Amino acid sequence: MTPEEFRTAGHQLIDWIADYRTGLPDRPVQSTVKPGDVTGALPATPPTAPEDLAAVMRDLDEIIVPGLMQVQHPRHTGWFPSNASLASVLGDIASSGIGALGISWQSAPALTELEEVVCDWMRQLTGLSEGWRGVIQDTASTGCLVALLAARERAADYVSERGGLQSLEAPLTVYSSEHAHSATPKAALLAGFGRDNIRSIATDPATHALDPAALRAAIEKDVNEGRRPAAIVVSVGTTATTAVDPLAEIMQIAAGYGIWVHIDAAMAGSALLLPEYRWLVEGIEGFTTPDGFTVPPADSLGWNPHKWMGTILDTSLLYVREPERLIRVMSTNPSFLRNSGAVVATEYRDWGIPLGRRFRALKLWFHLRLDGVEAIRERLRRDLANAQRLARLVTAEPDWTVVAPVSLQTVCIRHTPSGPNGETLDGEALEQHTLAWADALNRSGVGTVTPAKLAGQWMVRISIGVESTEWSDVEAVWTAAKELAAQA
Amino acid sequence: MTPEEFRTAGHQLIDWIADYRTGLPDRPVQSTVKPGDVTGALPATPPTAPEDLAAVMRDLDEIIVPGLMQVQHPRHTGWFPSNASLASVLGDIASSGIGALGISWQSAPALTELEEVVCDWMRQLTGLSEGWRGVIQDTASTGCLVALLAARERAADYVSERGGLQSLEAPLTVYSSEHAHSATPKAALLAGFGRDNIRSIATDPATHALDPAALRAAIEKDVNEGRRPAAIVVSVGTTATTAVDPLAEIMQIAAGYGIWVHIDAAMAGSALLLPEYRWLVEGIEGFTTPDGFTVPPADSLGWNPHKWMGTILDTSLLYVREPERLIRVMSTNPSFLRNSGAVVATEYRDWGIPLGRRFRALKLWFHLRLDGVEAIRERLRRDLANAQRLARLVTAEPDWTVVAPVSLQTVCIRHTPSGPNGETLDGEALEQHTLAWADALNRSGVGTVTPAKLAGQWMVRISIGVESTEWSDVEAVWTAAKELAAQA
Repeated sequence: MTPEEFRTAGHQLIDWIADYRTGLPDRPVQSTVKPGDVTGALPATPPTAPEDLAAVMRDLDEIIVPGLMQVQHPRHTGWFPSNASLASVLGDIASSGIGALGISWQSAPALTELEEVVCDWMRQLTGLSEGWRGVIQDTASTGCLVALLAARERAADYVSERGGLQSLEAPLTVYSSEHAHSATPKAALLAGFGRDNIRSIATDPATHALDPAALRAAIEKDVNEGRRPAAIVVSVGTTATTAVDPLAEIMQIAAGYGIWVHIDAAMAGSALLLPEYRWLVEGIEGFTTPDGFTVPPADSLGWNPHKWMGTILDTSLLYVREPERLIRVMSTNPSFLRNSGAVVATEYRDWGIPLGRRFRALKLWFHLRLDGVEAIRERLRRDLANAQRLARLVTAEPDWTVVAPVSLQTVCIRHTPSGPNGETLDGEALEQHTLAWADALNRSGVGTVTPAKLAGQWMVRISIGVESTEWSDVEAVWTAAKELAAQA
Repeated sequence: MTPEEFRTAGHQLIDWIADYRTGLPDRPVQSTVKPGDVTGALPATPPTAPEDLAAVMRDLDEIIVPGLMQVQHPRHTGWFPSNASLASVLGDIASSGIGALGISWQSAPALTELEEVVCDWMRQLTGLSEGWRGVIQDTASTGCLVALLAARERAADYVSERGGLQSLEAPLTVYSSEHAHSATPKAALLAGFGRDNIRSIATDPATHALDPAALRAAIEKDVNEGRRPAAIVVSVGTTATTAVDPLAEIMQIAAGYGIWVHIDAAMAGSALLLPEYRWLVEGIEGFTTPDGFTVPPADSLGWNPHKWMGTILDTSLLYVREPERLIRVMSTNPSFLRNSGAVVATEYRDWGIPLGRRFRALKLWFHLRLDGVEAIRERLRRDLANAQRLARLVTAEPDWTVVAPVSLQTVCIRHTPSGPNGETLDGEALEQHTLAWADALNRSGVGTVTPAKLAGQWMVRISIGVESTEWSDVEAVWTAAKELAAQA
C-alpha cells in the first residue's frame, strides 16, 4: 500500500472510528454472540486476492463490532474501566504510522527518551519523589512478574548467574493478600517459586485489606522453618472491592527482613493524580518509626494509565527505586545491539522481558498534552462522587446492601430479597439469585456489571469510570439492576 | 476529546503520516542525535493546560522524527527489517479506535476468535499441519520465555504446583546454539534455570548452524551427571547470519530424551510463506527414521510477521501442538473473569503472561486482506534475489568477502584491505577498520548496516527486506560501503 492509498483509506477509517464512537451509547454494551459465532462468520481459509477497504470495514460493522463487549460505552460498569481516550488513540495512531523500533537507544533515541520524560511527568503528577524511575510495560501482570524476578534474584544473591533457582537450599517465599489480583500468584508461579511457597494472607473482614499481623506471623513461621521471604505484593485497590492494603505497616514488617515490596496499584494508581488520594500509598518513600527504626522506600510500584486514567491499552507504568536491580537480571548485550560511539543511555530492553518495543510513550504524551491533566483529574473526581452517590442510593434501598467500603469508584452490592415464604434468601439460593440478576443485566445490553466472590459469596461490582460515564448512565444501570433483581 | 474533535484531528494526523512516509527516502536513515538531546528539547515538567494538535505535530516534526532511526526507510538494511506496512497500520488504527479489552473470551469474543482465525490462516499459508494452534505474543523474546516455562514444567512434572523449581533435585538444562538470539539465554535465566544449566552448543564453522554431535554430547554429559534436559531452542535463521540449525537431526536427538523443542524462527518464519523455503523447518511435523524410530512433532514455533513480512510490531506468532501445556502453567480463573452461562471458549490469557490483551489480530487481518498474500510473497522473493545479487557483487570485488552463507536476505561481509606496507590488515587493526567503515556508513545517513561478531571477529550485516527497498537502494548502500571503506 502506498502512502497515497493509505491517505485515502486512513481518512475513511478515521470517519469510521468517529462514527463508531459517536454511536456507542445506542449499542448494547454486552455482545450477544455465542462461542464460534464470529469464527463461523469468517472464511476458514485465507484470502487469495487483495480486497478493498470497504469490504473490510463492512466486516468490522457486521462481524467484529457486534462481537465485542463495548468497554468504551458510557454504561459499561463491568470489571474496571479500560478507557481508550481519543486523545491517547491519536498518540497510538502516530506510533503506528511512524513504525519505530525500540531495541536499543540507538534504534530509536526519541522512543527511549520520550518514555523517560513522560514517565517522569507521571511521577511528578502522582507525587512520587525524584528517587523513582519509570518504564512502560504492557500490563500490570507483566510488571508484577518483572518485579518478582528482580525480587527473586535480590533475595537469592543473583543465583541465576550460577545454578539458578533450582540450586537454592532455602526456598524463597512470596506474600500477598488473599484478595491480590490473580496475576500475582501467576507471576510467582512463572518465576518458579512454587505454590507451596506462595502465601495468601488473610484480610480484615471489614476492610478486605491485608491483615499485617497475619503477614508478620506467616513471615516469622517461614523464617523459623528455614525459608527466605523474598517479596511482598501490596494490593492498593484490590480487584474485588478496591481494598487498600496498609502499605506503611507492611513496609515496616518487610524492612526487618529485607523483603522486596512491590505495590500493585493497577487500578488505583490513577487516583494518585489527585493530591487528596495520595494517602493510598502513604509511606512509599520510607520513614522512621517513633522508636527510631528506619524503613526504606518501597522497591517497585505498578499502575495502569490504561484503566481509569484512560491512556489506551497497553500503558502500564512500572516505577522502581533501583533500575540496576532490573538491569542485572534482564540485560543482554549481544554484539549486534552495540551502540556506535561511546553512547551511554537508558536501554529499556533491560527493564523488561521483550527486546522489541513499540513507541508507547506517544499515547501518554498525546493524552496529557491534548486533554490536559486538570480535565483528567476533574473526570476522576466526577467518578468518585458518582460512586458515593450510588452507594447512598443502594444503602437507602430495602433488601440492597453495599457489601464493602467504597474507597474509590467501585461499588460492591448485593440484593437479598425475601424468599417465597417471607424468609430472607441465603445460601445457594442467594448465590443463584445474585448471578441471575447480574447475568440478566448483562444480557439486557443496558449496562454491564461483574459478579465476584467476596468471603466465599457472590456479590456484584459496579465499577464506574468510563470516560463518557455521567451520573445519568450510572443511574440507568442502577435502575436496570433493581428491575431485573426484582424479576430474577 | 469528543468523537467530532477526534475526527478533525484524526484527518490531520493521517495526512501527517502519509506525508511522513512519502518523504522517508529524503531523510537520513540514522538519526544524529546524541543521548539527552531529545530529553533536552522536551519540557522537564508536565503541561498544565491542554494544547492543540498542531503544537504536538510540530514537536513530532522537530523533535521526535529527527530523533529516530528511520526503520521504514528503503535504505535501512540494519538489524532485521521491522516493516510497518501501511495496510497493517490501518488494522492497528482500527484496533486503537475500537479500544477493545481482551481479558476473557466474553470481554471481546471477536478479539479472541479473529485471533484464532488469522493464526489459522497463517498456519495454512506457512504449510503447517492442522495439529498446530497459534496465538499472538508481543515479541519472539516473550514467546521463547512462554515456551521455556511450559518446557520447564513439563520436564519437572509441574513442580510449580508444589515446591517450585527451587525444590527440584535434578537440575533442568536448556540447550541452544552459540548463535542463538540473546533472548534465549535471557528467557532461560528469567525462567530460573541458572546460567550453569544453560548450554551454548558449538556450531559448524562453515554454516554457523548448530552441530548435532556437539548437542548430543552435551545432553549425554548432563544426563550422565544427573541433570534433566528440559528444552532445546532451535535457531531457524540466526541473528548474525540467518544460519539454519538442522531441525530434523535435533528433533531426533530430543525425542530420545523427551526434550521440548522450541523453534525460534523470528526472522526466517516469513520465508515459510514461500513453498520453496519450507525446507527451513523440514521435520517439524515429526517423522519416522529409516531404522523405525518415531520422532514426534516439535513442540513450539515462534516467528514474527512484524519483521520481514511486515505486519507492524507487535505481531509475534507462537504455535504449539498442545495448548494445554501452556494453559496448565499459565491459567488463572478468578471469579471476576467468570463467563456467564456455560461458555467454553479459548482464553488466550492462559496462553501467555499478560491478562489484558489488545486487538492485535486486526493488524494481520487488514494486512492479509488489503495487500494480499501473493503481493507479500512477491516482495519476499524480490528481497531474496537482491541478497543473492549483492552477494555476487561483493564476492567479485577485490578485498571484499561474503563471510557466511546467504541462506535468506542477509548478507554478511567484510572488507580486508592492504595495510600501509602492503600487508593484509588483520587482528585489532582489521576490527577497527570494520567498525570504522560501518559506523561511517551509518553516520552518513545514506543507509544503515549492523556490525556483529562472527567467530570472535567483527563483520557487517546488510539485511535486506524493508517493504520499499528496491535493488537501487541496495546498490546505493553497497556503493557507500565501498567508498567509505576505502576512506576508513
